[in-house]
Amino acid sequence: MKRTHHCSQLRASDQGSTVTLCGWVDSVRDHGGILFVDLRDREGLTQIVLDPANQGLESQFGSIKPESVIAVSGKVEARFGGTANAKLATGEIEVHASELEILNVSKTPPFPMDDSADKVSEDLRMTHRYLDLRRATNTKMLRMRHATSRAIRNYMDDQAFIEIETPMLFKSTPEGAREFLVPSRMNPGAFYALPQSPQQYKQMLMVGGVERYYQLARCFRDEDLRADRQPEFTQVDIELSFIDREDMYELIEGLMKRVWKDVIDVDIETPFLRMSYYDAMNRFGVDKPDMRFGLELVDCCEIFKASSFKVFSGAIKSGGAVKAFNAKGLADLTQGELRSLEDSAKALGAKGLAFIKCEGGEWKSPIVKFFSDEEKAALSELLQIEDGDIVFFAASEWERACTILGRVRLDAAQLLVKRGKLTIDPNDYKFLWVIEFPLMLFDEDEGRFVSSHHPFTSPVPEDIPLLDSDPKAVRGQHYDLVLNGVELGGGSIRIHQPALQKKVFEDVLKIPADVVESRFGYMLKAFEYGAPPHGGIAFGLDRMVTILTQRTSIRDVIAFPKNQKGQEMMTASPGIATEKQLRDLHIKAVLPKKES
Amino acid sequence: MKRTHHCSQLRASDQGSTVTLCGWVDSVRDHGGILFVDLRDREGLTQIVLDPANQGLESQFGSIKPESVIAVSGKVEARFGGTANAKLATGEIEVHASELEILNVSKTPPFPMDDSADKVSEDLRMTHRYLDLRRATNTKMLRMRHATSRAIRNYMDDQAFIEIETPMLFKSTPEGAREFLVPSRMNPGAFYALPQSPQQYKQMLMVGGVERYYQLARCFRDEDLRADRQPEFTQVDIELSFIDREDMYELIEGLMKRVWKDVIDVDIETPFLRMSYYDAMNRFGVDKPDMRFGLELVDCCEIFKASSFKVFSGAIKSGGAVKAFNAKGLADLTQGELRSLEDSAKALGAKGLAFIKCEGGEWKSPIVKFFSDEEKAALSELLQIEDGDIVFFAASEWERACTILGRVRLDAAQLLVKRGKLTIDPNDYKFLWVIEFPLMLFDEDEGRFVSSHHPFTSPVPEDIPLLDSDPKAVRGQHYDLVLNGVELGGGSIRIHQPALQKKVFEDVLKIPADVVESRFGYMLKAFEYGAPPHGGIAFGLDRMVTILTQRTSIRDVIAFPKNQKGQEMMTASPGIATEKQLRDLHIKAVLPKKES
Repeated sequence: MKRTHHCSQLRASDQGSTVTLCGWVDSVRDHGGILFVDLRDREGLTQIVLDPANQGLESQFGSIKPESVIAVSGKVEARFGGTANAKLATGEIEVHASELEILNVSKTPPFPMDDSADKVSEDLRMTHRYLDLRRATNTKMLRMRHATSRAIRNYMDDQAFIEIETPMLFKSTPEGAREFLVPSRMNPGAFYALPQSPQQYKQMLMVGGVERYYQLARCFRDEDLRADRQPEFTQVDIELSFIDREDMYELIEGLMKRVWKDVIDVDIETPFLRMSYYDAMNRFGVDKPDMRFGLELVDCCEIFKASSFKVFSGAIKSGGAVKAFNAKGLADLTQGELRSLEDSAKALGAKGLAFIKCEGGEWKSPIVKFFSDEEKAALSELLQIEDGDIVFFAASEWERACTILGRVRLDAAQLLVKRGKLTIDPNDYKFLWVIEFPLMLFDEDEGRFVSSHHPFTSPVPEDIPLLDSDPKAVRGQHYDLVLNGVELGGGSIRIHQPALQKKVFEDVLKIPADVVESRFGYMLKAFEYGAPPHGGIAFGLDRMVTILTQRTSIRDVIAFPKNQKGQEMMTASPGIATEKQLRDLHIKAVLPKKES
Repeated sequence: MKRTHHCSQLRASDQGSTVTLCGWVDSVRDHGGILFVDLRDREGLTQIVLDPANQGLESQFGSIKPESVIAVSGKVEARFGGTANAKLATGEIEVHASELEILNVSKTPPFPMDDSADKVSEDLRMTHRYLDLRRATNTKMLRMRHATSRAIRNYMDDQAFIEIETPMLFKSTPEGAREFLVPSRMNPGAFYALPQSPQQYKQMLMVGGVERYYQLARCFRDEDLRADRQPEFTQVDIELSFIDREDMYELIEGLMKRVWKDVIDVDIETPFLRMSYYDAMNRFGVDKPDMRFGLELVDCCEIFKASSFKVFSGAIKSGGAVKAFNAKGLADLTQGELRSLEDSAKALGAKGLAFIKCEGGEWKSPIVKFFSDEEKAALSELLQIEDGDIVFFAASEWERACTILGRVRLDAAQLLVKRGKLTIDPNDYKFLWVIEFPLMLFDEDEGRFVSSHHPFTSPVPEDIPLLDSDPKAVRGQHYDLVLNGVELGGGSIRIHQPALQKKVFEDVLKIPADVVESRFGYMLKAFEYGAPPHGGIAFGLDRMVTILTQRTSIRDVIAFPKNQKGQEMMTASPGIATEKQLRDLHIKAVLPKKES
C-alpha cells in the first residue's frame, strides 16, 4: 500500500477519489463498533472511518491503538452535515477505509502526546525523545530550525560567501573555556581538542584568500552546565576580508532582516541601535540590555558626594558610584519579593539593597533618615518619584554598582509584568549593537591583563599608542549583537599585522614566548605571508532559534540535547569504553576516590 | 581606501572611472622604473600601473613583492594598442594608480603559487596551507565543494526534507570501525564517542515522526589511513519513512542529476543501471565496478571442469571457479608490468597469475601445454582471443577468483590507457546501483555471522524464513551507489519491527543479550512505540567532490586535511595536553615503551 496523499492534503473537492494514507493513530473513538481514527502524519490529521462491516478490517481493530502505525486505503467522503471540523484543514472530509495494514503496534506512551507533556519530567521525555519529538510543538521547532539555517545560508550565498568546513579534530588552545580532548591513537600522548569555535581556522582562510567565509559549525565547551548551555552547540561563523566595522553592521543587519522575514514573517527595522559598552553598563547595568522596557539606572553621585550618609558619600570618595533606578509602581512588592531582590544583589557582592518605597505620600525606607531635605528633593526630581514607586540603590565601585542594579532591574521588571504594570512583548524585537568594549581587563588573580574577548581582536587604531602607556584605556574593535537581553553573537575586526599580534601576545598579555610559539606560532608565521585586513562574527544558532520559536531554553531547540550532567538520556551517552579501546588510545581511566 | 570593484570586474566600458581595488600582488614587472603589477583577489586579476612620477608612490615600491597585500586607487585606462590580453577577463584595461596603501608585506613564499606546486612535498604545502589555498586550483575546489553542498541542500529542501543536526558527542557502538573517544569530565570513567555516522539517531528521528530527514554530517573513523581515508569526513546522510527501494532509487537519481547539472553543468542519464552483487563480482570482480570499459571476466568452468590441467579442474571440483578475462591488445606488456600484475594477484591470495599471451599467431604461456585442443578452441571462442591479446586466469573459490581478476582487470586497464589502447573518459559518468547483497557473511575468525553492512538492514521479505534455515542465502534490502569504480554511498531499508530486530541481534548475529541491551536496548524499546517502515542512504561528500573536481584524493578537496598519521601540519594538531587537563578528565596517558 503506497501513500498517495499526506494527512493534511484532502479537501471536499477530493470526494469520491480513492486514496492511501500512512501515519500514526493520533486518537481513536468507538461509535457503536465503528472506529473513528484521527490519523496523523508529519503534515497533519485526517479522520479515518473503519467500519467492521468491511470484510477483514475488524480482525485488526485490536491493534488500532494510539501511536500505532497504520496504512489505510479508502474513499474520500464528505463528513455528515454538522460534523465537519472547521479547525482542521481536512475537516470537511473523512476517508472510509476499505483496506488496512497495521505497520507497527505501539505500547501506551509513558506521557501524553500533547502540550500537557511540557509538565512531565524532562528526564522522562528525553529518555523517550523519539516520542517527545512527535509532539506538534517539537515538530514545529525542527521545521523552524531548518528554516532558520536555510534563510542564513541563502542570504550568505547571495552575498557571495563560501561555506567551508573546518576540522573538528583541532588542537588544544589556551584562553577560553575548558575543552573536550580526544586522545590520538596514532600519536601516543598527543590529544586533539574539539573546537570551541573555528576562530583560528577561519582567520587562516582569510590569509588563504577566501575573502568571504561562513559555516554553520558545531562547537564544543566542556563547562559546567548550570546556565542555559550545552556541551555542543551550533555557531553561525562568519569572516571576511577588506572590510571595517560599518561593513559588518550592514551585512549582519541584512542577515537578521532576512532570517526574521523568512522564518516568522516579521519585518525588523534597520539600522540597529548602537550603544557603547560604557553606556550599556551605566544605563542598564549589563552589556546585553533588554531595550523593550525602561527602568534605566541613573547616577546619583552629584546628589550624594557630600552627603552625611557615609555609605553613599564614602563610595563616591573612594572612586566608586551611587546608582539608582525607580521600579515604577512596584511599592506593593511583598516582603518575600523584596528579600529575593536583595538576595540577587548580594549574590553580586552587594552588602544589602537600599531602597525608598513611596506609599501614601510617605517615603518608607531604612536609610531616608540620613538624607537632607535637599538630597530628598534632588532625588525626587531626578528619579521622578511618585506614590506607588520604589527606588533601589547601589553604592560601590562603578562597575559593581551598575551590575547589581542591572540584575535587580531585570528581577523588578518581572515582578511588574506579573502585576500587569509592565508589558514585555515577546514579539517586539529590539536589536542592539554594543560596541567600544575595552580591549583588555586586568585580572587581579593573575596579576596581568587578559583579553576581554580574545587576543586576536584589533585595537581601535587611534588607541594603539595606549597599549604601552595605558592598556586598560584601549578600546577594541569588538561588537556584540544583543536582542531583548540576549547576546546573540559577537565578533571583531582582527589584528592582521604580525608585529602587532606578537606585541599583544607577549608585551601586553604577557603570555610566555614559548607558549606563544607553540600555540600561535603558525598564525604569526602566516601573517608574514600577506594577511589581508579582516574581521568576523559568530552567532549562537541555538539561541537565535530559541527566540524565533519563543521557547525558553536552547535545550528546547536541539533534537537530542544533553542534560545538566552532559548526558543524553535516550542513548545513555556517555557510556563505558572497553579496556582494549583505552589501551589502543594510550590512556588509562583514573577514577576519583570514593567518598567515605 | 574602500574597495569599489573586484579584480575580475573592470572592462573597456569602465575607462575613465576612478576605482579602488584590494588584493595580493600576483606578479610584478619593472619596465624602466614603472611597475606593472598583476593584482589578484578571489575573483580574478587586474593589471595595475605604478608610475614613480606619481608623488609618494615610489617610496613604497620596496614593499610591492609577490603575495604582499595592497590597496590601490586610480583611473581605469585602455591598455596600449597590442598589449591587451585576450586571455584575461580584464585584459583590455589597466588601472593607473594614484594612491597606494601597503596593507601587509609578504615574505617570499616557500613554494610557487601556481600548478607547479603540485609537485612540491605535500607536507610543505600543508604546513603553509594558507598559501596553498590561494592557488587557483584550490580556490576553485573550495567553490565547487560549496556549490555541491548547496545543490544537495536545494534539492533536499525541494523534496520536503528537514535538515536536523544530531549529536557529535555520542556513545560507543560496537560493529564497524574503530572510534575516537572523548573522556567525560562530569561522568568519571565514562566516554563519549565521535559518531561514525548518525545512523542510530536518524532512525530515532524516523520513530520520532520526522519522515524525511537529511544532514551534511561530520563523521569520524579512527582507522589507519593507508587508503584514501581521513579521520574526519563529511557524509550526506538521508533517511525517510513509508518508502521502499524504488522510491529511494528515484530520489537519489534525482539528487545526482541536480548536483551534476548545478555544479558541472552535465546532464546525466537516469534511471541508473542496476546490477546484483553476484553479477558485479562475477563480471567485474568487485562490488563497485567501473563501467566505463569492458574487459569483463568470463566463467571458464564449462571448458575446464574435466581438464587434465589439475590446477583448473581441481578448483572447479572443490566447488570453486576458473575465471578469465582478455586484456585486449596488452600482449606487449613488459616483464616488469607482468610481475606487477602478478604481485597484485598474490596480494589477494593467488598463488600466481596464469596467462596466455597471443603474439605472431602463437600462444605463449607456461600453462597452455596442459590444455587439450578442444579446450584451446573453446577458450579462443569464448574470449575472442586475437593476435596481440593477453588472457589472465584465476582458479580458486568463486569469490576469491573474481576478486583477484577484478584487481588485475583494473591494473591492466591502466596499462592499456598508458598505451593509448583504451580510453577511460573522466567526463563519462557511469552510475550504477549494486543491489541484492547478502545480508550476512560468515566470519571464520569469530565463528559466527556478521552483518555485511550493519545490523539494522532489513532482509528481503521473502527471504525472512531463511534467517533460521540458511542465513547466508538471505538477501538484504541494501543498495550501493557506484560511480566509475568508486562507491559513492550506500544504504538500506531498515528493520522497523522490534521482534525481527531482536532476532537478528541475538539469534542470527549471536550478540550476547546483555550487549544488545546496553548498546541497542533503547532502539528495541523505541521500535515498540510505533516505528514506521523506513530506509536511508549515506554518501561521502568528499568523494563526490573529488570526482566532480577531477582531483585524485579526498585530501585535495578538504580545506585542512590530515596526513597519514592523522596530523594537521599547519596547526601541528594533535598536540600536548596539560597534566591538569588530563586530571580533570579522569585519565592518564600511558605511553608505549620505547623500542630499544
